Amino acid sequence: MQVSRRTVLGSALAAGAAGAASSAGAAPRRAGRGTVERWGVQELTFHGPSGGNPFVDVNLTATFVSAAGTQIKVPGFYDGEGVYRIRFSPPEVGSWRWASESNAAALNGVSGSFDAVAPTAGNHGPVRVTRDGYHFEYADGTPFRQIGTTCYSWALQSDARCAETLATLKAAPFNKMRMLVFPNVESVATNPFVRTGPGLGEWDPSRFDPAYFRRYEDRLVRLGALGIQADVILFHPYDSKRGYSDMKRADDERYLRYVSARFGAYRHVWWSMANEYDAIESKKMADWDHLFEVLVAADPHDRLRSIHQIHTYYDARKPWITHASIQNGAAVLDDVRAELHRDFALKPVIFDEVVYEGNSTKRWGWLTGPEMVERFWYGLIGGTYVGHSETYNAARNADYSWLGQGGKLLGSSPPRLAFLRKIMEDGPVPGFEPIQPWWNYHLAGKPNAYFLRYFGADQPREWDVVLPGKGPDALQRYRADIIDTWNMTITPVEGVFAMSRKNDYDVHDPARPKLALPGRPYIAVRLVRV
Amino acid sequence: MQVSRRTVLGSALAAGAAGAASSAGAAPRRAGRGTVERWGVQELTFHGPSGGNPFVDVNLTATFVSAAGTQIKVPGFYDGEGVYRIRFSPPEVGSWRWASESNAAALNGVSGSFDAVAPTAGNHGPVRVTRDGYHFEYADGTPFRQIGTTCYSWALQSDARCAETLATLKAAPFNKMRMLVFPNVESVATNPFVRTGPGLGEWDPSRFDPAYFRRYEDRLVRLGALGIQADVILFHPYDSKRGYSDMKRADDERYLRYVSARFGAYRHVWWSMANEYDAIESKKMADWDHLFEVLVAADPHDRLRSIHQIHTYYDARKPWITHASIQNGAAVLDDVRAELHRDFALKPVIFDEVVYEGNSTKRWGWLTGPEMVERFWYGLIGGTYVGHSETYNAARNADYSWLGQGGKLLGSSPPRLAFLRKIMEDGPVPGFEPIQPWWNYHLAGKPNAYFLRYFGADQPREWDVVLPGKGPDALQRYRADIIDTWNMTITPVEGVFAMSRKNDYDVHDPARPKLALPGRPYIAVRLVRV
Repeated sequence: MQVSRRTVLGSALAAGAAGAASSAGAAPRRAGRGTVERWGVQELTFHGPSGGNPFVDVNLTATFVSAAGTQIKVPGFYDGEGVYRIRFSPPEVGSWRWASESNAAALNGVSGSFDAVAPTAGNHGPVRVTRDGYHFEYADGTPFRQIGTTCYSWALQSDARCAETLATLKAAPFNKMRMLVFPNVESVATNPFVRTGPGLGEWDPSRFDPAYFRRYEDRLVRLGALGIQADVILFHPYDSKRGYSDMKRADDERYLRYVSARFGAYRHVWWSMANEYDAIESKKMADWDHLFEVLVAADPHDRLRSIHQIHTYYDARKPWITHASIQNGAAVLDDVRAELHRDFALKPVIFDEVVYEGNSTKRWGWLTGPEMVERFWYGLIGGTYVGHSETYNAARNADYSWLGQGGKLLGSSPPRLAFLRKIMEDGPVPGFEPIQPWWNYHLAGKPNAYFLRYFGADQPREWDVVLPGKGPDALQRYRADIIDTWNMTITPVEGVFAMSRKNDYDVHDPARPKLALPGRPYIAVRLVRV
Repeated sequence: MQVSRRTVLGSALAAGAAGAASSAGAAPRRAGRGTVERWGVQELTFHGPSGGNPFVDVNLTATFVSAAGTQIKVPGFYDGEGVYRIRFSPPEVGSWRWASESNAAALNGVSGSFDAVAPTAGNHGPVRVTRDGYHFEYADGTPFRQIGTTCYSWALQSDARCAETLATLKAAPFNKMRMLVFPNVESVATNPFVRTGPGLGEWDPSRFDPAYFRRYEDRLVRLGALGIQADVILFHPYDSKRGYSDMKRADDERYLRYVSARFGAYRHVWWSMANEYDAIESKKMADWDHLFEVLVAADPHDRLRSIHQIHTYYDARKPWITHASIQNGAAVLDDVRAELHRDFALKPVIFDEVVYEGNSTKRWGWLTGPEMVERFWYGLIGGTYVGHSETYNAARNADYSWLGQGGKLLGSSPPRLAFLRKIMEDGPVPGFEPIQPWWNYHLAGKPNAYFLRYFGADQPREWDVVLPGKGPDALQRYRADIIDTWNMTITPVEGVFAMSRKNDYDVHDPARPKLALPGRPYIAVRLVRV
């Protein structure tokens, strides 16, 4: 670590605050000491060269060292008008020291220190994959029960529309938002790069427009303040006229490094390398693999990483993938179909696109509310997670719906997804495990402790209460609830089910072999050990 | 290529004949010129050192060069008593020349030539993956419609039992047999390695017993003569007492090279690296990957390669895997579940173990005949292939059943699988493709030409004849058959269905929107373009 010897604009900002630069100093000195929450954002601001092309010409990093000896090298980025920033989210409380390195003299060899303090309420840290490999939790161990939605270009809409979207989300059940960096539908913000002419394709891929990214960050940070994870989608195939996803490799690499340096310190950021990657004709599988390697190297915060397909599943076993992100509307119409994706990925699975609720004239956007909710439940029984969106709007054109631009939710699924989320939060930690899925029990939960059975559109009038389990551990007593997942009622069943051995594989209560059910669709039964 | 200068025992044997050596010559000379069928086995026999440990001490290869310039280097093997053999299956007709290389002077620099002639009837060459990536065909382009079975240790039983198994197979529908090299149940042949003492674990992994392998080859060749592919399983976890699957890495490598050199020239051989690989505790994933690399390098005939799991799916996208070999009894109870395995593997999928027909006291061996057949049909609709076996026997111990030892078939599924095979052979080339599986049509065949719908245990009395398809190509006329897959009847429906556009996605015949069905289980409907 070097001693301070250059001008510095040290500014420790609390997590969630956008990066406003302090005033410049003059002589070599150390940055002022500040504090930041653990998992918050410590932003350092510098003044440096503004001539030439700083995005290409200037490199800047800082190495952060904790009192415990943890050392993390963090890339910075150019924010225009001679301002450079480095954003770092400290994973440990305590004192941190840092020193910069740059090929620009004004940015090189600056140093400083700050203290990372205990997080305030509601800051649980970034979301990570659980030790068992199939679920998510925050860094402080709090389970994260994913209920996702998608508003592709919401952050690129007018201030009023963005405010409306955020107000909607505040009252909605969603805790993860899939959102594009580049616009896919009519948007207010459309120029991530500096324009070179009036045509859609006239822009300079080597010069970012900092205002575009500052605006995006503002939305990003507001989303985080609502406790919603931002699944930031880096490329998509829907804009061949502008061609932001058809850049040359060096431009793609620079873009990944830029967004990683700008956004990666925010603890609620996830990376989705692309939406429908296999519909981007200018990139082949080897390109995607390469871009993941670039992203891993560029992102010291090691945020969650995945990629979303249209036809050809990306191989989620590749080491840079943290969880599978799947588009498939039929896979979550059966818990075993869903569960198979875990067997292939050996990682958490999120069905990020399962066809949408709405009134689209296209089959990918005309689900009823019950059909949307059904997919979430089957996904849960399969030990996986599901994502929502909706296409409702007067024009029946999804571009102008929640899916495209955000705004208001018009569908009937969100309250039922809030109800589902509560069921999930009351359930096993870290998540619902499918129980012997290869034997078609259609049960999830935790063996010998918690069983959830879901009947989908079937309308059974009774259910044989047969639970898989061997040995004395299986001989438990359970109380039962009948859950109407659409009408959002939980009806306790009187008494308990006292399990005894039924055969080599199962237990049951000979005195109560069956449970009467209401003969309506979308019923679930929950059995919890007493 | 070198000129002949050593003693040689050249012997060109027709495909299917076991390798009997000719008498030895004396002075350096060329091997006599012979002929062999294309895709047959040209076996070269040599006399060389018998002292020391020839399995370890001596290496031997021959390089074969065709008139067209194809060059193939083929490893030989030691067959005991100073006899060495090299087996080569020529992929091209015409003249082939060869020359040997060895670290043993007596085996080095021998050369010869032979002619590969056109194959006789019934020799279609080895089975390969089709160009579309999801099916199988013989080298001459004939489709291979896999209907598999498993008799793990059949080839290790008495001559009488083996003859009984072969007689059974001659009348059975199966065209692929999964069979172990090492015994898993009570067997007559139990010593692939030279014994060093009376205990089960007392054997020398560096010395093969050639008699064991000659006996195995005899069975292998007889199986091939019936037109049945031999899916040779190289390791398995069921014999911890003998420990053949718990050898050291160098012993495993030597074993793979030995079986590859001995068996690999037979055109009907497939390699299954292991049965339930993940139940073999002495080997980890990296070991299996390594062993595949060894096998690829050892096998110039490039036979089909896969591996079979109990819990953890092996990643079938790995480059050395030619097709997925899956154990999962529930995955083939729904065509979409089956089809998902193709999406993950991007290769042909064979459900080699889907639970067995029989009277076992274990749930993995108590399917009824209809349940066994149902799995084959769902697998077909999913664009995949399925394997059979059965556990019937008086003791209800699967070890002594068809599954363990071969013998007689007692189940009710085989005639229905023969019926299914005929349906497959009359169907699209190279195989049945799932048609828009992600939209839950439950149809397979060939778009706008051939549709097969299967209803499983459902008993519908009618079916809406709605076919996916857009544009003028979809506006075809179809004749229909109602197929009773259990009673093995095909009932033609009078008249045709003349398709017109129904909506953006589907076509139907407004004059005949529905087809009446018999209200029995296990019904299929076949629509063929007229």
